[in-house]
Amino acid sequence: MDRKILLKKDMKEKQELVNIILDRFLPRKDEYPKDLHKAMRYSVFAGGKRLRPYLTMTAFEMFNSNIELITPVAAGIEMIHTYSLIHDDLPDIDNDDFRRGKKSCHTIFGEGVALLAGDALLLSAFELITLAELDAKLRVQFVHELAKEVGIKGLIAGQMVDIESEGKKVDKKTLHYIHENKTARLINLSLRFGALAGEAKEEELKILDEYGKLIGLVFQIVDDLLDIEGTQEELGKTIGKDAESAKATFPAVYGIAESHKKAEELTEKAREILAPLGEKALKLDILAEYLLGRKE
Amino acid sequence: MDRKILLKKDMKEKQELVNIILDRFLPRKDEYPKDLHKAMRYSVFAGGKRLRPYLTMTAFEMFNSNIELITPVAAGIEMIHTYSLIHDDLPDIDNDDFRRGKKSCHTIFGEGVALLAGDALLLSAFELITLAELDAKLRVQFVHELAKEVGIKGLIAGQMVDIESEGKKVDKKTLHYIHENKTARLINLSLRFGALAGEAKEEELKILDEYGKLIGLVFQIVDDLLDIEGTQEELGKTIGKDAESAKATFPAVYGIAESHKKAEELTEKAREILAPLGEKALKLDILAEYLLGRKE
Repeated sequence: MDRKILLKKDMKEKQELVNIILDRFLPRKDEYPKDLHKAMRYSVFAGGKRLRPYLTMTAFEMFNSNIELITPVAAGIEMIHTYSLIHDDLPDIDNDDFRRGKKSCHTIFGEGVALLAGDALLLSAFELITLAELDAKLRVQFVHELAKEVGIKGLIAGQMVDIESEGKKVDKKTLHYIHENKTARLINLSLRFGALAGEAKEEELKILDEYGKLIGLVFQIVDDLLDIEGTQEELGKTIGKDAESAKATFPAVYGIAESHKKAEELTEKAREILAPLGEKALKLDILAEYLLGRKE
Repeated sequence: MDRKILLKKDMKEKQELVNIILDRFLPRKDEYPKDLHKAMRYSVFAGGKRLRPYLTMTAFEMFNSNIELITPVAAGIEMIHTYSLIHDDLPDIDNDDFRRGKKSCHTIFGEGVALLAGDALLLSAFELITLAELDAKLRVQFVHELAKEVGIKGLIAGQMVDIESEGKKVDKKTLHYIHENKTARLINLSLRFGALAGEAKEEELKILDEYGKLIGLVFQIVDDLLDIEGTQEELGKTIGKDAESAKATFPAVYGIAESHKKAEELTEKAREILAPLGEKALKLDILAEYLLGRKE
């Protein structure tokens, strides 16, 4: 099968599995208090690529075919990702009116509801992850690592430095700090959880960790480039917004050509790193290529 | 020893134990990114009574004297409580400039930082609770129940209905829904976790659950009454604010005299319920009296 078609088909299948879990887990829209549940569902089903769950499920599948075991964890990670987008879009942080081609949560439901819907998704993630039929020690480890790497040792620290840097010219060190924490960590953790649950060996975990760090960075560089080069239709958010507001982006710090080159080199490195895993890592290899070439 | 002095001494000792854990766990004020850590510490050490950790530790102590086992859980619950106060005070929700006699978090650090500090405390709570030296299954259960009862099945649902009810005349059913969810659940869970970790028997858990529900309600009624009757100095927040803004409060729905009567009756009932536990429940008995008579 053609590599691109194989990936597309696999992503679609896993997206559907994750969507089923999310739909079953989240309260119905008409459950009291309605607006909270409407807002949560609105953002969760706003058409995300489900990249993080895909990574979790694909890493797991390399070592264990019983994929149902990991889907609650994968879906929980997607809820955490959605929480971070809702809070990030709020006027107090990034003030974005659009997300994934649709109005952002607070634009529709108001800021108070969006704030609470974000909180609720973060909490729901832990509720769901603890339900996974995995060893209790592993679930404790997942909760611990997520809480840490989404919190003060990761995503939130990244968001904090991001808002502090608004309107300032940032240096390379700060740029990397923001994006490693805001984006790359959760992407890496998604892979790690799949591999841990699948009982990958120490050296396999190490390979996936290196791969995860690299594609996490590529993901963000491409995001920054799309913000400049994409058309609004393809991307579904206000184009050029990051550049305009002098935000910390790769093209702003390295220039456009250098950012493209960086993304290509990192992708190549990520694919090379997978080599010792052989055929087992085929999907991750195709994914690295896809993340570099994506248009949305 | 005089009952009041006994309680005061015991609360102070446990407060200190919790404060030590919180101080050790939270990043220093000068750690990067500083404002995030300053804001977290500011709100955590703004002079709370540490009622919830007190309940956890006191319930645990009824069945197990090795109190260090439960302090990370107790401190985690206090961080969750603090998170809920920070987000509740934000302009998007309650818009309160004062809390515990001090300026609220966003008034000092700005809304974006306060939002992130709240998120970070919620996450840190899970990070800390999973570190407790308790059986992994119990830790998974704690995370699960907290995520649920702080989230869409509890605190956040209560906050949501609270903001929806702003400026409207609420009925008794709505009032109880808001306060059971916003306040009583976490108070009850605090007791429950102590008792569960102490390996209380099923009938003991049941007694504490009934007691917890009652004092949770008393706590909120007294809070509402203090908002009307307290002096600003005693209470440390803008007096009469809840009444002015037509918020859902017990005095607004039941009247002042009836609210006092209700609080007294519920307290009496809570104390009666403890009877089968005998001497073991002495501190909780004194605490019920204290919560009824508190002036701050």
